[in-house]
Amino acid sequence: MALIGTVAAEILIPLASVIGILFAVLQWYVVSKVPVPSLAGDDDAVGKGNRSGSASDYEEEEEEEDGVDYRGVEARCAEIQRAIAVGASSFLFTEYKYLAAFTLAFAAIIFVSLGSVRRFSTSSEPCPYDPTLRCHPALANAAFTTVAFLLGAITSVVSGYLGMRVATFANARTALEARRGGHGGGVARAFAVAFRSGAAMGFLLASSALLVLFAAVNLFGLYFGDDWAGLYEAITGYGLGGSSMALFGRVGGGIYTKAADVGADLVGKVERNIPEDDPRNPAVIADNVGDNVGDIAGMGSDLFGSYAESSCAALFVASISSFGMKHDFAAMMYPLLVSAAGIVMCAATTLVAIDAGIAVKGVDDVAPTLKRQILVSTVLMTVAVAAVTFLALPRSFTLFDFGHHKLVKNWHLFICVSAGLWAGLVIGYVTEYFTSNAYRPVQSVARSCRTGAATNVIFGLAVGYKSVIIPIFAIAGAIYASFRLAAMYGIALSALGMLSTIATGLTIDAYGPISDNAGGIAEMAGMPAAVRGRTDALDAAGNTTAAIGKGFAIGSAALVSLSLFGAYVSRAGIETVNMVNPRVFVGLLAGAMLPYWFSAMTMRSVGSAALRMVEEVRRQFEEIPGLADGLAGVSPDYATCVRISTDASLREMVAPGALVMASPLVVGTLFGVETLAGLLAGALVSGVQVAISASNSGGAWDNAKKYIEAGATDEARSLGPKGSEAHKAAVIGDTIGDPLKDTSGPSLNILVKLMAVEALVFAPFFAAHGGIIFNHL
Amino acid sequence: MALIGTVAAEILIPLASVIGILFAVLQWYVVSKVPVPSLAGDDDAVGKGNRSGSASDYEEEEEEEDGVDYRGVEARCAEIQRAIAVGASSFLFTEYKYLAAFTLAFAAIIFVSLGSVRRFSTSSEPCPYDPTLRCHPALANAAFTTVAFLLGAITSVVSGYLGMRVATFANARTALEARRGGHGGGVARAFAVAFRSGAAMGFLLASSALLVLFAAVNLFGLYFGDDWAGLYEAITGYGLGGSSMALFGRVGGGIYTKAADVGADLVGKVERNIPEDDPRNPAVIADNVGDNVGDIAGMGSDLFGSYAESSCAALFVASISSFGMKHDFAAMMYPLLVSAAGIVMCAATTLVAIDAGIAVKGVDDVAPTLKRQILVSTVLMTVAVAAVTFLALPRSFTLFDFGHHKLVKNWHLFICVSAGLWAGLVIGYVTEYFTSNAYRPVQSVARSCRTGAATNVIFGLAVGYKSVIIPIFAIAGAIYASFRLAAMYGIALSALGMLSTIATGLTIDAYGPISDNAGGIAEMAGMPAAVRGRTDALDAAGNTTAAIGKGFAIGSAALVSLSLFGAYVSRAGIETVNMVNPRVFVGLLAGAMLPYWFSAMTMRSVGSAALRMVEEVRRQFEEIPGLADGLAGVSPDYATCVRISTDASLREMVAPGALVMASPLVVGTLFGVETLAGLLAGALVSGVQVAISASNSGGAWDNAKKYIEAGATDEARSLGPKGSEAHKAAVIGDTIGDPLKDTSGPSLNILVKLMAVEALVFAPFFAAHGGIIFNHL
Repeated sequence: MALIGTVAAEILIPLASVIGILFAVLQWYVVSKVPVPSLAGDDDAVGKGNRSGSASDYEEEEEEEDGVDYRGVEARCAEIQRAIAVGASSFLFTEYKYLAAFTLAFAAIIFVSLGSVRRFSTSSEPCPYDPTLRCHPALANAAFTTVAFLLGAITSVVSGYLGMRVATFANARTALEARRGGHGGGVARAFAVAFRSGAAMGFLLASSALLVLFAAVNLFGLYFGDDWAGLYEAITGYGLGGSSMALFGRVGGGIYTKAADVGADLVGKVERNIPEDDPRNPAVIADNVGDNVGDIAGMGSDLFGSYAESSCAALFVASISSFGMKHDFAAMMYPLLVSAAGIVMCAATTLVAIDAGIAVKGVDDVAPTLKRQILVSTVLMTVAVAAVTFLALPRSFTLFDFGHHKLVKNWHLFICVSAGLWAGLVIGYVTEYFTSNAYRPVQSVARSCRTGAATNVIFGLAVGYKSVIIPIFAIAGAIYASFRLAAMYGIALSALGMLSTIATGLTIDAYGPISDNAGGIAEMAGMPAAVRGRTDALDAAGNTTAAIGKGFAIGSAALVSLSLFGAYVSRAGIETVNMVNPRVFVGLLAGAMLPYWFSAMTMRSVGSAALRMVEEVRRQFEEIPGLADGLAGVSPDYATCVRISTDASLREMVAPGALVMASPLVVGTLFGVETLAGLLAGALVSGVQVAISASNSGGAWDNAKKYIEAGATDEARSLGPKGSEAHKAAVIGDTIGDPLKDTSGPSLNILVKLMAVEALVFAPFFAAHGGIIFNHL
Repeated sequence: MALIGTVAAEILIPLASVIGILFAVLQWYVVSKVPVPSLAGDDDAVGKGNRSGSASDYEEEEEEEDGVDYRGVEARCAEIQRAIAVGASSFLFTEYKYLAAFTLAFAAIIFVSLGSVRRFSTSSEPCPYDPTLRCHPALANAAFTTVAFLLGAITSVVSGYLGMRVATFANARTALEARRGGHGGGVARAFAVAFRSGAAMGFLLASSALLVLFAAVNLFGLYFGDDWAGLYEAITGYGLGGSSMALFGRVGGGIYTKAADVGADLVGKVERNIPEDDPRNPAVIADNVGDNVGDIAGMGSDLFGSYAESSCAALFVASISSFGMKHDFAAMMYPLLVSAAGIVMCAATTLVAIDAGIAVKGVDDVAPTLKRQILVSTVLMTVAVAAVTFLALPRSFTLFDFGHHKLVKNWHLFICVSAGLWAGLVIGYVTEYFTSNAYRPVQSVARSCRTGAATNVIFGLAVGYKSVIIPIFAIAGAIYASFRLAAMYGIALSALGMLSTIATGLTIDAYGPISDNAGGIAEMAGMPAAVRGRTDALDAAGNTTAAIGKGFAIGSAALVSLSLFGAYVSRAGIETVNMVNPRVFVGLLAGAMLPYWFSAMTMRSVGSAALRMVEEVRRQFEEIPGLADGLAGVSPDYATCVRISTDASLREMVAPGALVMASPLVVGTLFGVETLAGLLAGALVSGVQVAISASNSGGAWDNAKKYIEAGATDEARSLGPKGSEAHKAAVIGDTIGDPLKDTSGPSLNILVKLMAVEALVFAPFFAAHGGIIFNHL
C-alpha cells in the first residue's frame, strides 16, 4: 500500500538518529580544536591549582591586538571556565540526587495506582477499545509504564547534563575565538564556535530522544506483541518521565539563575555602579553557572519533554486508529519518521549556516543568520514531511474520534504537520517583532524610560499582553485545521510538526547562553573592550533567539497538551467534556487559576533568594578590604554565592513542583475524571497566555535596556548612556523581567504539558477509583 | 401554596424601592446640613466669581484649632469643590454625548438583527421551548429588547451621574467636618459625612435599578400577557444596556483618572518632590475629577450592570421553569424579592454603622466599622433570604436544565442565594488580607522596597497572583453547590445573592473616593496638618474597602456571566458545549486571550495619556514663573490638564470598547454559536484571574507605600520616611499599580459580563444566521 514498509521504517528511524548523533559529535570535535591552555581539549585539568594572580608566567606566542597579556588572559579564561563547569556540575549532581529520590517514589505511585485498577490481577482482560478481544492485564501496563517513566526521566536528565557539559566546554572557547583579529574575523570565528556547540547539544538531544523512544517501542513490543493499544499506553510513561524531570530542571534552574542574576544586578549595577560580569562582583560566577543550569540544562529537558510527549500522544492515538488495529507498522511509526526526517533536514540547515557561502562575516550578519535558520529548516521540513507522508501512509484510513470513526486521507496528515510547523514560524517571527530592539514595541518601551521605571513597567506589561494575540490566533488556526482533518491525532501531529525542527531550535537556543557566558568570561578575564564588543553583539542576537525559542516551547506545549488532553478524555472514557456540567466548569475555573498560583510561588522564590544574595554580596563588598576598588590579588568569595543559589533553588523548587505533580492526582482522585478534564483545559488556555506575555514582557525590557546601552540611533543616544536616569529605569524593568521570562514563564509550559500527560498516565486509575468526593455530592 | 401572592409581590417590591430611595434622600439631606459658604447647600453658586487670594475678607466665628484663617479655607474649599464638580460634569456630559450616539446605533443593530430572525414577520410563531404553543413574533422581541436596552442604558447613565453629583457634593463637606475639634471628633464627623454620602449613592442606585426593572416587567407584560418566555427574553436587553454603558464608564473614567494620577505623581512626587494633592501641581484638579468620574460614576454603572444582568439572567431562566410556565408571579419575582429584601436589610445595617451606639469614635474605629458593615449585612441578609424563600416559593418545582427537567425544592434556592452571599464575604475578607497593610503580604511587599523598585514589583506581582487562589475556590464552591441544586437558575441566584447587599457594598465603595477627594481638598485649601492626618486615615481605610469592592464586583461578575452563559447556551439551542469539539476549543483559547488584548489596550492608553500629562505639567512648572516655589497669587492652569485627561479618555475608550462589543458579534456571526460559547467561557475563566490579580497587586503596592509613609511600626519607620530610597521604590510600585487596579482590572469584569449578555441577547440571531465561515470549513 505505502512505499515505506516495516523493514524500511525499522532501518530509517535508527539511521537518522545515528546520523544526528554523529553530526553532534562532529560539531563537538570541531569546537574542541580551539585550544584552551592546560585543559587539553576538555576540563580534566580541574584541580590543577589556582592560577589567580600568576598571569604573567606564560610566554607570548600569539598575535596580539592591543598589548594585552594574552597568555594570562587565556589562563584566566580556563580557570573561569573550570569554576563555572564545577559549579554547574555540582549543582546538577545535587539536584539529581533529590530528583532520583522523587523519581523512585513517583515510580512506586505509578506502579501501585495503575496496578490497583484490576487489583493487581495477572490474568488478561477485555481490551478497553474492543471488549471482544483479550488484552494484557492492567498489572503489565503498570509495570511497563513505570519502566517507561524511568527511561524518560533518565534520558531527560542525561540530555540536560550533556547539554550543560557542551555549553561549559564551549563558553571559554567562544571568548577566546572572539579575540582573533580584524574585519569581523573574531565575530565569525566566535559565532562558529558558539553555534557549533549549540548544534552539538541540539542534535545530541533530538537524536537520542528519538533513539531511546524507538528502542523502547521495539523492546516493549517483545512483550506486548499485537496488543498495540497496551504497548503505546505504557509508552506514555516516557513522556511523563521526561516532563517531570523538565519541571524540576526548569524551576530549579530558573530560580538558581535568576536569584544570582537579580542579586548581582541589584548590588552591582544599581548600588556599586560596576559593569555586568565584573569579576569583583561575588555573585558573578553564580550568575554564569545559572545560565548553564537554567537556560541550557533546564531548557534541554523542557524541549525533550515536549518532544517525548507529543510523540507519545501521537502514538497513543494512532494505536487505536485503523492502522493501529491492522498493525501497519510503517504508518504507525509515521510520527517517528517525521522526527527522523526532521533531524536530517536540520543537519542540512546547519550546513547552510556555517559551511555554505552565506556564513557570518561580521556583527550585522549574526541575527539574520539565526533567523534564516528557522526559515530554511521550516521550508526544507515541509518538503520532507510531504515525502514521508506519501511514502509511509496508506492513501486513506480511519481514526477513532471520541466514539465515532473518522475517515482520513494521507494528505490531511501532511496539512496537520505543516500547520504546526508554520504556526511555529509565525510565533517565532511575532516574538522577534515584540522583543527585538529593531522594531517599534521595544523602542516604545525604551522611550517610556524617559519618565521613569513606572512607565517602563506599564508599557512593558502592555507589550507582553499584546504579543499574545497573534500567536494565539496561529495556534488556534493550527488546532482548528488539524482537529477538523484528523481529530486528536491531527493535533498531536501538529505539535510534532512544530517540534520537528527541534534540533535547529535547540541549536539557536543554546547559542544564546553560550554567547552570554562567553561575554562574562571575556569581562572577567580582562579581555579588551573590542573583544567584549564582539561577544556583546553575539549575546544581543542570542537574547532575541532565546525569546523565539520560548515562543516555540510555549506554542508546542499548547498543542502537545491539547493532544494529551484528547488522549486522556478517550482513555478516561468521558463522553463529552461539557462546560455546562458543574463538575467540568469548576475544574476549568480552578485550572485557569493554577498558572497564577504557580507563578506566585516561583516569583516569590526568586525574589526571596535574590534578597539573600543581595545581603551576601553587600556583606562581601563591605567586609573584604580592597574588593570594591579592585585591588590586585583580592578576589571575592564566589563559592558562598554559588551555595546560596544552590540551596535556594533546591529548597524553593519543591513547592511549585509539588503543586504541579499533585494537582492532577488530587483532583482526579477526589473530584473525578470530568473535573480533571476541566482543570487541564483551564490550565492550558490560561497558562499559554501567562507564559507568552511573561516571556515577551521580559524580553522587551531586556532589549529596551540593551537598546539604550548600544545607542545605535539618535533616540537611543538621547536616552543613554549607561548610568543615565532613563538607563536606570530600564535596568529596573530588566530586573523585573528576569524571573518572568526565565523562571515562571518557561516553567508554565511544563505545568501545562505535565499535568496533561500525568492525567493520561493515571487515566485508568481515575476512571476506576476517582471522584470520591463529587460522587457523593 | 406560598404565603406571598401576586398582589403582595406587586406591593412589596416597589415598596422596598421607595423605602430605599427615601433612605437615600434622608442621608443626602443630613449631609447637606453641613454648611459650605456661599453655596447654600448645593453648588448653585457656580459662576459667582473667583475668590482666590481673597481669603481674609470673612470674619471669624468658629472655633479654631491652630490659628488658621478658617473663613479663607472654607471659601477655598467651596471653590475647589466647584472646580471638581464642574470638571466632572463637563466630562460626563461630553462622554454621554458620544455614548448617546453609540447607544442609538447599537439599538438599531439590535432591532435589525433580532427582527431579521424571522424576516420581520408580524405573525405569531411556535414558542422556542414548547412548539405546540404560539408565541409573539420575533419582531416583537426585537422591538421590546431594543426598548429594554435603551432603558438599561439610560438608568445606568443616570445612576453614574447622580453618584458623581452626590460625591462632588460631599467631598468638601467631609473635609470641612474633619476640622471639628478634639479627641477624634473630626474623624467621627467626617466619617459620618463621607459614609452617609456613600449611602445616598448606594441606596439610590440599588433602589432605582430595582424599581425601573420592576416597572419594565409590568409594562412589557401588558403586551406579552402570558408569554413569559418572550417577556423575559426581551427584558435581557435591560442588562445589556446597563453593562454597555458601564463598559465605557469604567474604561473612559479609568483612563481619565489614572492618566491624571500617574501624570501628577510622576512629575510631582518623583521629579519635584512636592506632596500629593499639592495645589501647585497643575494635574491635581484633573486627578480629583478622575476619582469622581472613574471610581464613583464608573463603578456605579458597573455594579448597576451586574445587578441588572444577574436579575435578567435569573428571570430569563425562571421564565422557562415550572413557575414560569404556570404563571406563579410571586415565585417568578423571587429574584426581585431577594433584591428588595436586600435594600431593607442594608438600610438596617447602615443604621448600625452611624446611628447605633457602636459608631466611629476615632481613627482606629474606621476600618473595623467598615468591615463590620459587610459582616452585619451578610448575616441580616441570610435571615431575610430564608424568610423570602419560604414565603414566596412553592415547596418544590421543576427547572429546565439543558433539555432535562430538574426537580428543585425551595430550600435549595435558599442555599444558592446564601452560597453567593457568603462567597462574597470570603472574597471580601481575603482581599482585605492581601491589600491591607495590617497583614503580612503588604508588609513583605513594603520590606522588599529596601532593595529597590524591582524587588517591590516582583513581590507585588506575586502577592496579586497569590490572592487569586482562595477567591477562585470560593467562587468554584458557590458554583458547584448552586449548579448541582438548581442548574443555571441556581448560578443566577448565587450572583444575585452576592449582589443582594449591593447598597452596603456601594456605600463603602463610594466612601473611599469621597474621602480621597476630601483629603485632596484639605491639602489644596491649606488646612492644617492635623486635619489632613484625619482625612488620610479615612482614605487609608477607603483604599482597602475599594479593593474589597472590586473583589465583590469581580466575584459577582464571574457568577453573573456564568449564568448568562448558561442562558445563552439554552437560548442558542446548543446541546453540549463540548471542549473536545474544535469549534468550541478554539473559542475557548481565543476567549482566554481577550483579557490580555483588552488589558494591553487600556494599559497602553493610560501610559500614553500619562506621558502627555507629564509633558504638560513639566511645561507649566518651567514656563509659569513662581509656580514651583508656590508664590502667592500664582496658580497653575488646571483646565488644560483636565482637557488632556478628557480628550485622552474619550479617544482611548473607543478601541477597547469596540473590542468587547464587537467580539461576540463577529465570532457569533462568522464562527457560530459553539465557538461563541467557547469564547465566553474562555474570557470568563481567564478574565477573572487577570482582574483579581491586577486589582490586588495594585492595592498591595498602594498600601505598601502608605505603610511606609505612616511609619506605624519599627519596620515601617526603618523603611521611611517619605523621600527615602525605599519610599521612592514604593511610589514606583504604586504608580504601576494605578492602571492595573483602576483601569484594566475593574474593566475586565465588564468585559466578562457584557460579552455574555450580548451573546444572550443576540442568541436568536446567531442561531438563525450565525457561523457563516465554520459552516463551510
